[in-house]
Amino acid sequence: MTRIAIPEDSPFGLANLPYGVFSTPGTEPRVGVRAANVVVDLAEALGDDVFARPSLNAFMEQGHERWVEVREQVLDLVTDEVPGSAVHPVGAVTTHLPIEIADYVDFYASEHHASNLGRLFRPDSEPLLPNWKHLPVGYHGRAGTVVVSGTDIVRPSGQRKAPDEPSPSYGPCRRLDIEAEVGFIVGTGSPLGTPVAADDFHERVFGVVLVNDWSARDVQAWEYVPLGPFLGKSFATSISPWVVPLLALEAARVPTPPQSPEPLPYLRETNPWGLDIDLVIEWNGQVVSRPPYREMYWSPAQMLAHLTANGASSRTGDLFASGTVSGPLKSERGAFIELTWGGKEPIEVQGEKRAFLEDGDEVVISATAPGPFGTRVGFGEVRGRVLPAR
Amino acid sequence: MTRIAIPEDSPFGLANLPYGVFSTPGTEPRVGVRAANVVVDLAEALGDDVFARPSLNAFMEQGHERWVEVREQVLDLVTDEVPGSAVHPVGAVTTHLPIEIADYVDFYASEHHASNLGRLFRPDSEPLLPNWKHLPVGYHGRAGTVVVSGTDIVRPSGQRKAPDEPSPSYGPCRRLDIEAEVGFIVGTGSPLGTPVAADDFHERVFGVVLVNDWSARDVQAWEYVPLGPFLGKSFATSISPWVVPLLALEAARVPTPPQSPEPLPYLRETNPWGLDIDLVIEWNGQVVSRPPYREMYWSPAQMLAHLTANGASSRTGDLFASGTVSGPLKSERGAFIELTWGGKEPIEVQGEKRAFLEDGDEVVISATAPGPFGTRVGFGEVRGRVLPAR
Repeated sequence: MTRIAIPEDSPFGLANLPYGVFSTPGTEPRVGVRAANVVVDLAEALGDDVFARPSLNAFMEQGHERWVEVREQVLDLVTDEVPGSAVHPVGAVTTHLPIEIADYVDFYASEHHASNLGRLFRPDSEPLLPNWKHLPVGYHGRAGTVVVSGTDIVRPSGQRKAPDEPSPSYGPCRRLDIEAEVGFIVGTGSPLGTPVAADDFHERVFGVVLVNDWSARDVQAWEYVPLGPFLGKSFATSISPWVVPLLALEAARVPTPPQSPEPLPYLRETNPWGLDIDLVIEWNGQVVSRPPYREMYWSPAQMLAHLTANGASSRTGDLFASGTVSGPLKSERGAFIELTWGGKEPIEVQGEKRAFLEDGDEVVISATAPGPFGTRVGFGEVRGRVLPAR
Repeated sequence: MTRIAIPEDSPFGLANLPYGVFSTPGTEPRVGVRAANVVVDLAEALGDDVFARPSLNAFMEQGHERWVEVREQVLDLVTDEVPGSAVHPVGAVTTHLPIEIADYVDFYASEHHASNLGRLFRPDSEPLLPNWKHLPVGYHGRAGTVVVSGTDIVRPSGQRKAPDEPSPSYGPCRRLDIEAEVGFIVGTGSPLGTPVAADDFHERVFGVVLVNDWSARDVQAWEYVPLGPFLGKSFATSISPWVVPLLALEAARVPTPPQSPEPLPYLRETNPWGLDIDLVIEWNGQVVSRPPYREMYWSPAQMLAHLTANGASSRTGDLFASGTVSGPLKSERGAFIELTWGGKEPIEVQGEKRAFLEDGDEVVISATAPGPFGTRVGFGEVRGRVLPAR
């Protein structure tokens, strides 16, 4: 038996205890909990086969009461003695995609981001479209290309036409970008025909990850009217490996910014699910932005209520992301197209000029949120390196 | 042992032999083949457990060579004697969703439909947008709300704002519509980073279904700028239960209409996969339209090549649909918004005026295509009835 050392200031302390899927050399992927710098094998430590699976889906499907119960068991476990064979240093494990993704939806919930992109993509119109303050605008993305942090990103090719080109051509993306987002994972689905109330968010959503919604801006600009982004986004979406339980985020709850006009009744929530998450974006190791999630106009509870307002069912493993997190300051923008204003104002990154991503560049998005008693809850990171086009 | 009577003029004759998933009272859903008016239980008749599953996915995953081999086995089987216990009258079985849908993509490949919708949604601009003839415009839909023919469609509610209303409201859809489409099912996926060549279409795509992409036009009109259709479509998409093998459609192949400008190399195919499918739309039992699939500008092989052109992976069970099939004539339009010109020119249906769908209305889309020797290959039907909003 072994006792895990969990410093009070660890971002993976007792107030966090996120779940993931890991393997060690020669073993199958299975569910683990991260505590400080170790991963605890839950199938072995708790003797429950639901954790011997290569995704969290089976466990999530058991529902909110069970999530509460297991979280208590895990807390007991890591504060007591654990069988040594169930404990692995985090550096000795490989992390895998923690969720079998059902449907993937991406929202557009930052007023600052939506306004910036409106100015860049539609310079002759109002930056914010008439529907934007009435509903959380969103669209479906490609679930099959959601990958785990650490997966290399091959520069996508695609069809694009610069304004000064007479016709489009096919070739490697010239304006490869990121979007720093926060993603929410549905643990228990809802049946066809039954909208989820905003106030039921906490019973449906299991946990939270960081998302990098890689974006080929030139492909997107040419393709996206009238049916929205498609190949400009579908080549890869990276998520962080450790799913922070929603139960760990009580101390991070804050009101959303004032919403005016008042949302329609189906979008109202009793205690808003704004979240005080601080994101950090590093480009080749240099911090280039610190997007504040608390600035997001729409809450994730409103997103889920909207997503199902037409009676659409939801499923265990659905991932819905917030859209780019951008704050009001330039130093808080969550996409490079905003940071470099469409590429017209390049920034200096480790001594080199950058407008968009070059081959070999690496981006790391990390985040923390307040935990109880002054602690911080860490989301870990979502990391990806750009490989040349094939 | 029993011998199946298969009339030469059956739309489910020897040239067709579509696959589906069925059950009889008290038994589990499993794979069957339809021959004339019976369903043959493949797990029982061929003794292969891959057919004892509740979807075609495991069989499809075995790949193109295996599809050819099984098709020959099935042909031998239904032209010889079959164990009586493996044969069920089609009226005695329940059909289920035949595929576990991975990702769902909807294209917009009819020039007539795209032009009509352009005129209706954007009356002050060119009907066809600049990108339309350069690439098959498409977007991701909600895989989790794809349902099998016969599933009732609860009228969705949603947020909508008529042009003469000062602000949006939430309530039952007032402009509920259909889209008659043809859907293609990926049998063997392709890895991340590897585009599928248009000429590899026939090795990747297992079969074809009819699709009714139910559409809440008022919800769609309010929400769709700038990220595309979302809740206006995601409440339900119906598909026909019998998957017609692509192998059964050789005699239905026709050239696509002339494509000008010439598509970029990645969208070229050696022998175009235009398909001479005749669709029929019945509204409360009255034929209201006969959309010709051969008029579709983009072929499904071009759609798959485009879908993966950025390196996006594809998976067994991916469904991509053509978008509304509309021909040049008014009597060939595949959506009611086109047939009734945005509701301004109601049509008479069984003696009643209709612009959009009323509660209790039923829509049936059926189709056939040429088979060898003057036969017809039937797609069966996709049927749905509208229930009042909850």
